[in-house]
Amino acid sequence: MNEVLAGIDIGGTKIAVALETAERERVATRFLSTQSEAGPFAVLEDVSRAIEEILDEKGDGKLVSIGVGSPGPLDMEKGLILSPSNMRDWDRFPIVGLLRERFKVPVMLDNDANAAALGEYIYGAGRGYKNIVYITASTGIGGGIIINGEIFHGVSHGAGEIGHTVALPDSDIRCYCGTIGCLEAVCAGARIARRAQERLSKGEASLINEMVRDVEQVTAKTVIEAARRKDKLATEIWSEACRYLAVGVANIFTLLAPEAVVIGGGMAAAGEMLFEPLRRITPQFVSMIPHEKINIIPAELGTESGICGALVIARKAFSNSYQIYAA
Amino acid sequence: MNEVLAGIDIGGTKIAVALETAERERVATRFLSTQSEAGPFAVLEDVSRAIEEILDEKGDGKLVSIGVGSPGPLDMEKGLILSPSNMRDWDRFPIVGLLRERFKVPVMLDNDANAAALGEYIYGAGRGYKNIVYITASTGIGGGIIINGEIFHGVSHGAGEIGHTVALPDSDIRCYCGTIGCLEAVCAGARIARRAQERLSKGEASLINEMVRDVEQVTAKTVIEAARRKDKLATEIWSEACRYLAVGVANIFTLLAPEAVVIGGGMAAAGEMLFEPLRRITPQFVSMIPHEKINIIPAELGTESGICGALVIARKAFSNSYQIYAA
Repeated sequence: MNEVLAGIDIGGTKIAVALETAERERVATRFLSTQSEAGPFAVLEDVSRAIEEILDEKGDGKLVSIGVGSPGPLDMEKGLILSPSNMRDWDRFPIVGLLRERFKVPVMLDNDANAAALGEYIYGAGRGYKNIVYITASTGIGGGIIINGEIFHGVSHGAGEIGHTVALPDSDIRCYCGTIGCLEAVCAGARIARRAQERLSKGEASLINEMVRDVEQVTAKTVIEAARRKDKLATEIWSEACRYLAVGVANIFTLLAPEAVVIGGGMAAAGEMLFEPLRRITPQFVSMIPHEKINIIPAELGTESGICGALVIARKAFSNSYQIYAA
Repeated sequence: MNEVLAGIDIGGTKIAVALETAERERVATRFLSTQSEAGPFAVLEDVSRAIEEILDEKGDGKLVSIGVGSPGPLDMEKGLILSPSNMRDWDRFPIVGLLRERFKVPVMLDNDANAAALGEYIYGAGRGYKNIVYITASTGIGGGIIINGEIFHGVSHGAGEIGHTVALPDSDIRCYCGTIGCLEAVCAGARIARRAQERLSKGEASLINEMVRDVEQVTAKTVIEAARRKDKLATEIWSEACRYLAVGVANIFTLLAPEAVVIGGGMAAAGEMLFEPLRRITPQFVSMIPHEKINIIPAELGTESGICGALVIARKAFSNSYQIYAA
C-alpha cells in the first residue's frame, strides 16, 4: 500500500479535491459544487465519496491524512468553519471532526489565503525562499505570511490580513469590515469596478461604454482590458489602484523585509499591467531596504495554489501526527 | 572562574557597558561618552578598558562573549557600524572585529531597536510572550520584531522599521528618509515639536507660550506637558500624533497579530496620556482580530532596554559559538 494524502480546497462556488502520493505525484483532482440546497453535510458527503472513489480507482493507496483550505472565519482549534460570506449555511460546520471520524486520519484546517501562500511557497513562485508574503488580489485582498517554511498565524490566527491594513486613514472610504481606508476598500477589484461605474454613470467618455451593454456589468476585468487599450478613464482608475497596492506592498517590505512578495488573484492576472507599476512605485515608498531586494513576483499556480496548499497542510497533518506517534 | 557576559549599548551621546554572570546577575554598569574628538577607536579603547577593569575588580570572572547594540545602518555580516546620524566619524567602524581581536571571544552586533526589543522580550514587558513587536517612539520611531524568541531580521536585516511604514501616502509630509507620509514623519516627537512651533509662530494662544522663552525651545515634551494641563493647541497636536501612531500599531496587529505591541521611548514616557488614546483608537482600525487581543503595553526597562538587549545578544553569541564548538 502506498501512502496517499488528500487536499480539499473550499471556495465560494466550487470545491477542489486532490490526492497525491508521498512522492508528490498527483493521483487525481475532482471538482464539486459548494452551493447545494441539501446543505454542507451533503456537500461533505460528496467530497468524502470523491476521495473514496479515487482511492478505489487507484487500488493500492492508503489515505494517511487530509488538509483543508477554506474561506474564513474559522475556529482552527475546534476545526470549525464559521459562516464565511457566500457560505452562510456553513456556520460552525465541524469539517475537521467529520472528516477525522470518517477517514480515521489526522485532518488539519487553515484559511484559503494561508493555504494558497503555502502552495506557492512549496510548489510555486515562493520555492527556494525562507520567508515570503503571499497576496491574493481579486475582488478583495487576502494574504498569508510564511516564515521559516511555516504559516505565521499570530494571535487568534489573525496574521497576514494585508487587505485590511489601513492605507488611507483620513479618507471616507469605508470597508465592509467596519474600518476606514483598508487597502482592500481602496484598491481591490470591487473598488475598481465601482469607481468605473460611478464615473461612467456621470457620462464620462470611455471605451468601456462600447465594451458592456450596461454600466452595472463593468468589472475590474473590464477596466483592466480598457486600460490595456489605453482608455484614459480606465488607465486612471487602474493606475490609482496599482499605486495604493504598491503602498501596501511597500509597508510589507518595510515591516517584514520578506525575500519575496508573491502576488496572485485576478489583479495579478493582468500581468505586466500590474507588475510594471508595482515594481516602479513600491520602491518610492520603501527607504529602509536596498531597492534591488524589493522582489515582487507573480504567483505561478493560478487556481491550483489553494489545492496545492491543502496538500501541503495534509503533509503537515501527517508529519505532526507522526511526531506524536513517535514520541 | 565564573563565566561573565558583556553588553555594549551605543547611543548617540553615551555608551553603556554592562557585565553580567551566566545566572543573569549584573556585575557592574558603566557609562562613557560616545562623542570624542579622539574618534571611535579611542572610544572603543575606553569601552574595552572599562570591561577589563570590571573583570579585574570582580576577580573570578572569565569573559565568554560580547553583545553590541548600535544605531544603524550596520553591516551585520562584516560587523561594521556605517555612519549613523550624529556619529558621522563611525563610518565602516569594524567594532566586531576589534572587540573579537582584543578579547578573543565571540562578538555579535545588532541595531539598537532590535537590541531593545530583545531586552524587553527577555527582561521586560515582553516576558512570557512568543511573538512581540517593540516600538520605540521618541524624536523618531524605531522598532524590532521578535518571533519565537528571536529577532526577525528579514532580508538585508531590514525588518521592523515601523517608523518608515507609510501612514499618509497622499500627504505632502516628507520624511528625511526620502519617502512620503512615513509614520515617523507624521507623528514622532520631531513632528510634534515642529507642528507646535509652526502654530505658535502664527500667534496662536497656548500655555506653551508661558512654558518656554522662545518658540524654538518647544519640544514634544513641552507639548505633552501642556496637553496634560489641558491646553487646547497642545491637546490637538498630541491627539493627532496619538491617532496616527494608533494607525501604525493597528497595521502591525492586522499584518502580524503579535501577542503584544510593547512601546517605549519618550512618547511612551507620557504614560496614560499615550496609552489611553492608543488603546481606544487602535481597535477602530483593526477588524480581523478580536479586540480583546489587541494588547498594547508600556516598555518596562526605560533606558535599560538597550543594555539588557545587548546582554541577551552576548548570550546568543556565546550559545551560537558553543554550538559551533560542540559540532
